[in-house]
This record gives sequence, C-alpha cells and structure tokens, in this order.
Amino acid sequence: MRVILAAGATETGLIEGISAAGATPAVMTATAPADAEILVYGQPTTTSSTPVSPTGCPTPAAVSRAVREVVGFDVTVLDAGMAEPTRAPTVDLGAATGTDCRQATAVPNPEQVFEPARRFGSSLPDERLLIGETILGGTTTALGVISALGEPTSVSSSFPDNPVARKREVVAEGLSASGLSLGDCAGTPLTAIEAMGDPVQAAVLGTATGALGSGTEVVLAGGTQMIAVAALLRHGGLELPLELATTRFVAEDPAVDLAEVSARYELGVTVTDPGFEHGEHVAVARYLAGEAKEGVAMGGTLSLVPEGEMAAVRRRLVGVCARLGIEGDTPTAREDESAATKSEDWATDGGTYGS
Amino acid sequence: MRVILAAGATETGLIEGISAAGATPAVMTATAPADAEILVYGQPTTTSSTPVSPTGCPTPAAVSRAVREVVGFDVTVLDAGMAEPTRAPTVDLGAATGTDCRQATAVPNPEQVFEPARRFGSSLPDERLLIGETILGGTTTALGVISALGEPTSVSSSFPDNPVARKREVVAEGLSASGLSLGDCAGTPLTAIEAMGDPVQAAVLGTATGALGSGTEVVLAGGTQMIAVAALLRHGGLELPLELATTRFVAEDPAVDLAEVSARYELGVTVTDPGFEHGEHVAVARYLAGEAKEGVAMGGTLSLVPEGEMAAVRRRLVGVCARLGIEGDTPTAREDESAATKSEDWATDGGTYGS
Repeated sequence: MRVILAAGATETGLIEGISAAGATPAVMTATAPADAEILVYGQPTTTSSTPVSPTGCPTPAAVSRAVREVVGFDVTVLDAGMAEPTRAPTVDLGAATGTDCRQATAVPNPEQVFEPARRFGSSLPDERLLIGETILGGTTTALGVISALGEPTSVSSSFPDNPVARKREVVAEGLSASGLSLGDCAGTPLTAIEAMGDPVQAAVLGTATGALGSGTEVVLAGGTQMIAVAALLRHGGLELPLELATTRFVAEDPAVDLAEVSARYELGVTVTDPGFEHGEHVAVARYLAGEAKEGVAMGGTLSLVPEGEMAAVRRRLVGVCARLGIEGDTPTAREDESAATKSEDWATDGGTYGS
Repeated sequence: MRVILAAGATETGLIEGISAAGATPAVMTATAPADAEILVYGQPTTTSSTPVSPTGCPTPAAVSRAVREVVGFDVTVLDAGMAEPTRAPTVDLGAATGTDCRQATAVPNPEQVFEPARRFGSSLPDERLLIGETILGGTTTALGVISALGEPTSVSSSFPDNPVARKREVVAEGLSASGLSLGDCAGTPLTAIEAMGDPVQAAVLGTATGALGSGTEVVLAGGTQMIAVAALLRHGGLELPLELATTRFVAEDPAVDLAEVSARYELGVTVTDPGFEHGEHVAVARYLAGEAKEGVAMGGTLSLVPEGEMAAVRRRLVGVCARLGIEGDTPTAREDESAATKSEDWATDGGTYGS
C-alpha cells in the first residue's frame, strides 16, 4: 500500500483565524515540510519546530507516523507548492505556492500542476493508493472550490469551533474578486481551482485522475478537503468508483453529513475511530475536544490498522509525541495503555457508509 | 533501517567502453532515474526502458528491490546530479551532473553538494544507514579520486572483463588536465572529487560525514566506488568506525583485495552471497558470469536478508525481472526455486572480514 502526501501552501492559509495548524507564523509556514518529514523520518529534520496548535494539539502527521511504525506502508511526498524546503524526499510537480484566494487568481495555471500529477499517477504500478494532504487553510480553499462548483456541502475545521463565518466571508470576497457567482465553475474543476483553490487540490486531482485511469484504486484520505477533491473529480466527468477514508472526528462534525456526501459523490466512505478515549495524553485529549480532526492522510492510515492493533498505534503515538517534544504522558495514561495491551478488542476499526 | 541511494551522472559515464550499465546511450542516461524508480516503485515509471546490459544483465536495482519486497526497508533517494528527471521522490542537493573527468574540473564546487548532504545526514534520526549509489562510469571516477589521493587500490567493473587499461588511460588524461600527479590530493578529499570524481561521491561523503558526526552508524553499501568513498572519508580525517557491505561478486574480483582494503581504511566488511547458482534465470547467470557485481546498494541490502530467506529473495527477483520485461525463467529454474523453498538453509548469508 502506498500513501501519497500532497504538500503545499497558500497565502490563504496565513489569513488570521483560518487555521489551527501551527501556533506561530514561523511554525505555520514550516507545517507542510515538517509534516512530510514526520511521516518519512519520524520527526522534523529541517527545523526543531513541530506543528502544534496553540492549545498543544500535535499535527495529524504524528498519528499517521504512529500508524506507519505499527503497520508499515510506503510514503511518497508530492511537492505541491510548499513555501519552504523540506528534507523529505519529494516528487517535484513544478508547483508554486498558491496566492490568497481573495485575489482574482488563487492558483495561476493549475493545469501546469494537474498535468505532471496526472502523468505521475498514471505511471504508478500500485494496485491501490491512499492520497492525503498537508496545506494550511485547506478547508477554506475547499469551501472556495465547492462554492465555485455550486455544491452545497459545508466544510470542517481544525479548530474545535469552526470559524465558518470567517471562511464564508473570505470565499465571498474571493468569488467577487474572480468575477464569479456560486456554481459558475460547474463542470470545469480546473477553473474552480484557478479562481478559489490551492495547488494541493490540483496535485491530488491530477494524481487521482491518472491513477484511476490506469486501473489503480484510489482512496482519498481526509475530511472535507478530500470531499472537495471528490466533487472536483465528479465535476470533471469521472465515473469510476472512488473511496474516502476519514476519521470519527470528521464523521462527528455537525458541519459534515457523510451519508449525504457519500450519495452525492458516489463515494465509498470508511470512518475509523482511533479510540483516543483510552488515554489521557494531551494529543488524544485535543483530538477528542474536536481539534485538528484530520490531515496528513490520518483517516486513511488509520483505516489500514488491523483489528486489535489500535492500542499499539496509540502507544506508538505517545512515543512519536515524545520525539516531537510533546510531553503529556500522565501516570493515568500509562496505566490505561497497559490496560489496553491486555484487552485490545475494544478498538472500533471503522464502519462503512455508502457504496 | 534506512537505505540512502545517491543517484547521479557524469559525462565520464558516457565515454565508450567504460560502463556496462545500459545497452544504448538513451538507456544509459536514464539508468540512475530508472534505478531509483525500480527501488521505490518496483519498476521504471518515467520510461519503459529498464537498465539492462548488452548481454541482458539487469541492473542491481532489481536485486535490491527484490530484497526490499522480502524484508522491507525505507528508501531515500538523493538527487546527486541526475542527467534526466525521475518520478521517484528525491532529496534535492542542488547537484549538477558531473563533467568528463578528462577535463580540468570533474565536479565544479563539490562543497556545494557536500555541505547540504552533510546537513541532511546529520539531520536524520536513524540509528543506522546503508548508503548506496547509482552512477554510470562510477568505477572510473573512483579510480580517479583514489589516484588523486595517492591510494594504491584498484577498481572493479560492471563488465566481466574489466577495461582497466581504458580506465587508467582516462584517469591519466584527467590528472594531466588537472595539473595533478598521483597523491597530490592526499588529505584533501573535496579537491580530489573536484579534479577527478563525481557528484555522487560528494553526496555520499557529505551524508556519511553528517550522519557519523551525529551518532548514526554508517554502512557504505557497494564495491570499489564505496571503497573510494571510505578512502575519501579517511583522508578527510574521519576516525569513527565505518562499515562496508558488498557482494560475493566484488569479493571474488581479482582486482579487489577486501582484506587489504579492510585493514587500510579500518573498515568492517560484510560480504553477502545471494546464492545465484541456485537458479538459471538470465539475471543470475549474468551475475555469476561476473557482470554488474554491485550497485544500487545491492551488497548492503543483501546483508539485511535474514538467514533462510535468500531463496525468497531469488524467487522475488524472478518476479521483479518479469515486471521489468526481462524473461528467462526456464523450467529448470522454476524447479530449482521450488527445491529452494523446501530447503532454504543452504543459503550463505555472508561472512565478515576485518574489524
């Protein structure tokens, strides 16, 4: 199983109040490079800064890395317009960082990212791909393209309290600057990305298009950002089967109706619950409080965990967090983990909605 | 365990009669990108050309990939100056392709490759690295730097009949063009690379220096090209322990005295025998005939195979070759493989020379 991580950046992600990823502007621009390094090497290797939210919630890269250390999977990182260099190995798509989507153009020439990504996707010999993302402000640009396509779906947030009014304001401003009304980009996904999206969407759209077209199964691994890519794929005329793998935290978000999404975009949907209530580490506490929810293919990687192994993933997550300098392993949490070792079958390994 | 593959190219590699890697010039320039893709994806993904020698010997990437499919290891590819793009994810060291070492300068500004490689190596959290290479003409540039350092060691070849006279001629011409006599670069490894070497040497030298300096164990995975890097490291003043892992085919090469090399460079040397006499596939026949011998970390990856698993690697190699379009699985070979399944303990899993 290969996990593709499309990593990029936009100026949209730096708009105040948009994203919970990264506590400071310096950490924010380093988020995607650091996420890639955490997934590939187990910790950031370019800077010592770990992407942590203002309340101490670690990046979902820590969860996907913990899964990788337990189940093992190949990782391929796509440079889909990162704002800073990474020491993770990347496939260069020639993508530039996206602008602020409140401007007339959010992604200049998105076909120049889509095309190499499509060729890359069609070249892969894998039977099945999971595709995830890391890009700051990605739910806002997701709302942007969904609005441009004329789709009704709302978006989730990395904040416990979704700043949805702020996002709608940003999107309204962007549509106006682009001279667009809701639905003006129906059937033309690259136009939607050009006006309102981000380069990661162009990379995932291209990779998925190329892979599906050459007989590879594709699982979009993420929440509302990947639902937006599913919408883009369907608006582009894709009729092949498509899957979405996400977390319990997205499924429980009142902003998301997965059953409706599954029907609308003909998506086989898998929801996995990492069982974070069985621990008191700050990482799991913040996820349970509704922070982060998804990202860095977290829902997809969790779907790879065999039954009975989720406790091992949670134990490994504590180790990954320690490496990232995120302490919080209370005696209670340790007791709980040893309890989980003895009885692992409590783990809920995901349910399936839709086709 | 992480395997680092430094991939690059020089104009030296295109000198006629130097290298057996690649049957035609077009395949030759695609060798390093294709080797990286074979190791990462299991087959070339940019072109349909597989690096195969004129006699049908597949690239050692096929062997290292077969090992990877059996034992599993992480791969990180360094772009150390490839002449063509690859679809494998790479860490960009900013390296340019090397020139023809018969010119005054073989690698302009090698410290501009060495320094990012050193920082990369020192950033890795791994306990142990295997470092391999893929670069056409690499034994000639190895002979070049060894001569510039004033070291007596000879070099191996990817041909069964080592065109050593041709290599010495090229090196003599290069030393003369650089205004150097044998030994003029003793103690100054980057000067030796600049005059006579290749960008892969600068990348491996830097990565090993950075990794060793930060407490990571380093195994140079290869034959005489990696012995040249060991010489460069010792000439640079490195006193830390260093290992070399290579194949039986290098150990049996009359051009190489591993016991002498081990003593001279204080190298712990591991030699692994893939047991290719237990098969009749063209791939194993060509290796037994003395072709290729090493490359793409082959000796290092083979050293990772647990006792009793080498037959599984050979069976997997037949599958990898089939994917690469290299047929040659005779009925006898198939019988032999099933025999190997029943009795796996014949496999020789390597001996250790030196410290």
